[in-house]
Amino acid sequence: MNTVELITAKRNGRELTEEEIRYLVRGFTEGSIPDYQMSAFLMAVYFRGMSRQETIWLTREMKLSGDTADLSQIKGVKIDKHSTGGVGDKTTLIVGPLAAACGVPIAKMSGRGLGFTGGTVDKLESIPGFQTALPVQDFFDQVNGCGIAVIGQTAHIAPADKKIYALRDVTATVENLSLITSSIMSKKLASGSDGILLDVKCGSGAFMKTEEDARQLAELMVEIGKADGKKTMAVITDMEQPLGNAIGNALEVREAIDVLRGQGPRDITELSIELAGRMIWMGEQADSAEEGLAKAGRALRTGAGLEKFREFVAGQGGDPDVTDKNRQDELLPVSPCTRTVTAPRDGYICSMDAMGIGLASQHTGAGRQTKEDSIDHGAGILLHHKAGDQVKEGEPICTLYSSDEARLETAAGEVLRSVQIGDAEPDLSPLIRCVVE
Amino acid sequence: MNTVELITAKRNGRELTEEEIRYLVRGFTEGSIPDYQMSAFLMAVYFRGMSRQETIWLTREMKLSGDTADLSQIKGVKIDKHSTGGVGDKTTLIVGPLAAACGVPIAKMSGRGLGFTGGTVDKLESIPGFQTALPVQDFFDQVNGCGIAVIGQTAHIAPADKKIYALRDVTATVENLSLITSSIMSKKLASGSDGILLDVKCGSGAFMKTEEDARQLAELMVEIGKADGKKTMAVITDMEQPLGNAIGNALEVREAIDVLRGQGPRDITELSIELAGRMIWMGEQADSAEEGLAKAGRALRTGAGLEKFREFVAGQGGDPDVTDKNRQDELLPVSPCTRTVTAPRDGYICSMDAMGIGLASQHTGAGRQTKEDSIDHGAGILLHHKAGDQVKEGEPICTLYSSDEARLETAAGEVLRSVQIGDAEPDLSPLIRCVVE
Repeated sequence: MNTVELITAKRNGRELTEEEIRYLVRGFTEGSIPDYQMSAFLMAVYFRGMSRQETIWLTREMKLSGDTADLSQIKGVKIDKHSTGGVGDKTTLIVGPLAAACGVPIAKMSGRGLGFTGGTVDKLESIPGFQTALPVQDFFDQVNGCGIAVIGQTAHIAPADKKIYALRDVTATVENLSLITSSIMSKKLASGSDGILLDVKCGSGAFMKTEEDARQLAELMVEIGKADGKKTMAVITDMEQPLGNAIGNALEVREAIDVLRGQGPRDITELSIELAGRMIWMGEQADSAEEGLAKAGRALRTGAGLEKFREFVAGQGGDPDVTDKNRQDELLPVSPCTRTVTAPRDGYICSMDAMGIGLASQHTGAGRQTKEDSIDHGAGILLHHKAGDQVKEGEPICTLYSSDEARLETAAGEVLRSVQIGDAEPDLSPLIRCVVE
Repeated sequence: MNTVELITAKRNGRELTEEEIRYLVRGFTEGSIPDYQMSAFLMAVYFRGMSRQETIWLTREMKLSGDTADLSQIKGVKIDKHSTGGVGDKTTLIVGPLAAACGVPIAKMSGRGLGFTGGTVDKLESIPGFQTALPVQDFFDQVNGCGIAVIGQTAHIAPADKKIYALRDVTATVENLSLITSSIMSKKLASGSDGILLDVKCGSGAFMKTEEDARQLAELMVEIGKADGKKTMAVITDMEQPLGNAIGNALEVREAIDVLRGQGPRDITELSIELAGRMIWMGEQADSAEEGLAKAGRALRTGAGLEKFREFVAGQGGDPDVTDKNRQDELLPVSPCTRTVTAPRDGYICSMDAMGIGLASQHTGAGRQTKEDSIDHGAGILLHHKAGDQVKEGEPICTLYSSDEARLETAAGEVLRSVQIGDAEPDLSPLIRCVVE
């Protein structure tokens, strides 16, 4: 096979065969196909697209490019959850314990990633002592014992994706449904769970700006998951404004604990029960989505989820007393420099652009821009108001936290640009848009 | 400026600014923009195209990426000729001496290139003693003295083109009018002549398969040349079948001499007079194209062109007696293994696919597939019949020459696949299709 001919074929709109896709993925991963040919191929895919069948083959090859986790030592129907990424999304910290409390084994490998805050692993690492690098047997034992474990993703899961994504990122070839799908699903399918629940975000703070785009992505991902023999389902949820009130690593851990205590913001609580309920159903601990949701709600109200969170933290070496309100200031980092952003006028907050708030969070130091950046675990944003709220001029909208006074200025400017205040009470779109099964 | 943003802009169909194009060309040439970003950009250009204005800027930046020849030491209006490449095209060897004999200074820098035969420089090197690497002052002196010199292109002419073309070749991004134009014209505009006559080929053996495609390319090239302040003109000519009867390096030198002696094939003679005549007009040695053509025809008939060829060869160290029929077998290489390909049936040759004959020539060893390949100067094909001719079964169609007996089999098969024999006399398209001024 000849790489130039395959680039030409895709450029001219031909559907590639399984063998051709295998040749490209293997060749690129092993290094026999150079970056410059792969990037030209990816740009051709951007313009010509890939069929469902091509996407299935591409995802499978990427999945098979590295290790595939064997979770057979873990009992039960293991369900994974994946969010396409949003601002203030700390649901994993909540739905994991809730689902585990209802008998669904959660064996999660999570990334760090770049972005507005760290990934789930970074958030967990803001808990003193928490270990995210466990030996495989300890990981299995923790899931079998406590019902939940979360570790950092190893380098051997879907190396093809790692290499292809790094290239897409610098060649303007990120925005293609098939490439996005194969990137997400190759890792999920390699990580060994029996089912995958996808939380596909849509809105200004999400990769998919419209519900229609999000639905297309969700449908393709669900199809690809099923083609690989996994239970797969997607919930499309709003990301016009941040989820919950906390953005940042330790700040989000606190909010997750608040939710598990039944004292969290309404939106993140609602979404967590929806996701956990579906995971309980998919994990065969309920006979319907409704029953799953009821069980998840009960685990929240009874404190079973909070108790599971403490067990989980303790099991991975962390201090479970982070759930104690009186000890949180001592146990969880809070960055020393703060600034309060106030409302510039009276009115209703019509919108609070999630992307802008996310950028502000990155400015505080809560996120990474490059893989080498370190994360300020105590930095971030605490929102005192959300879209739909009525505010008075001078009233605090949010508090910014950073370890660097100079960063607060930029972050505050970004917040002000992101918040629109108007005279009329806005119509907000529902948080949970639809479900793709 | 940010490379990913510029790739995105082109991908989304935006027209780039002069500064943005400069940033891309300079960055890539200097190495600060890596291959993989440039190839993604080129693929985006393939799909989105470039405006005339973008093409002008691109060509100018590529031209300015290296040395631009200063030919001011050469007296007169210097005219360059460029062919987009075809099979059996040895016109430079003929029109150079004809135009020079009529007072137009020809200071040509020519490439070697890959393809079915070598380039002009390779062809000239099949003449014993001929030097294609002259010091600059000797080059000027030769043009001022004899009226014509042809040397190999130096590495410093348009290095951006060299680097971009090498990348396009392996990333399926060759076929784009703006990229083709900028590649050809950046080199031509850097090589210092006052005017450029383009021979744009169309047909099966050419890059442009249809007259319409060839016309679009010709119009763009003429516009780009004029935008740079050069007299520029294009002739669109047929390349359905090879030009003349000889394909190969020494074989083509012989045929060029035959033409200059007035004993060459009709098609190549006609085209040579057309091109030389226009160069004489552009070089201000005639007041009209018609007068130029008349002067070129006269230079051919009187032997002035042949005499100029001998002077030219002698001036660059070659043996001028290659023009002596009786000494050609001794002076010009002829590869020892030969095979005659005969007509498989009675009838008219309806078509003789130039591309196929070109491939056959490459199989004999007359061309290069990679830069490292050496050329067999004595190899190639001599056609005894062309499209339109009536043949009998078993009658020789051509003779193949090679230094390697084994190569003849493949070459002969390729010739047979390329020649179609039918019952009716075919309608052939005219050699000279049209002129773009």
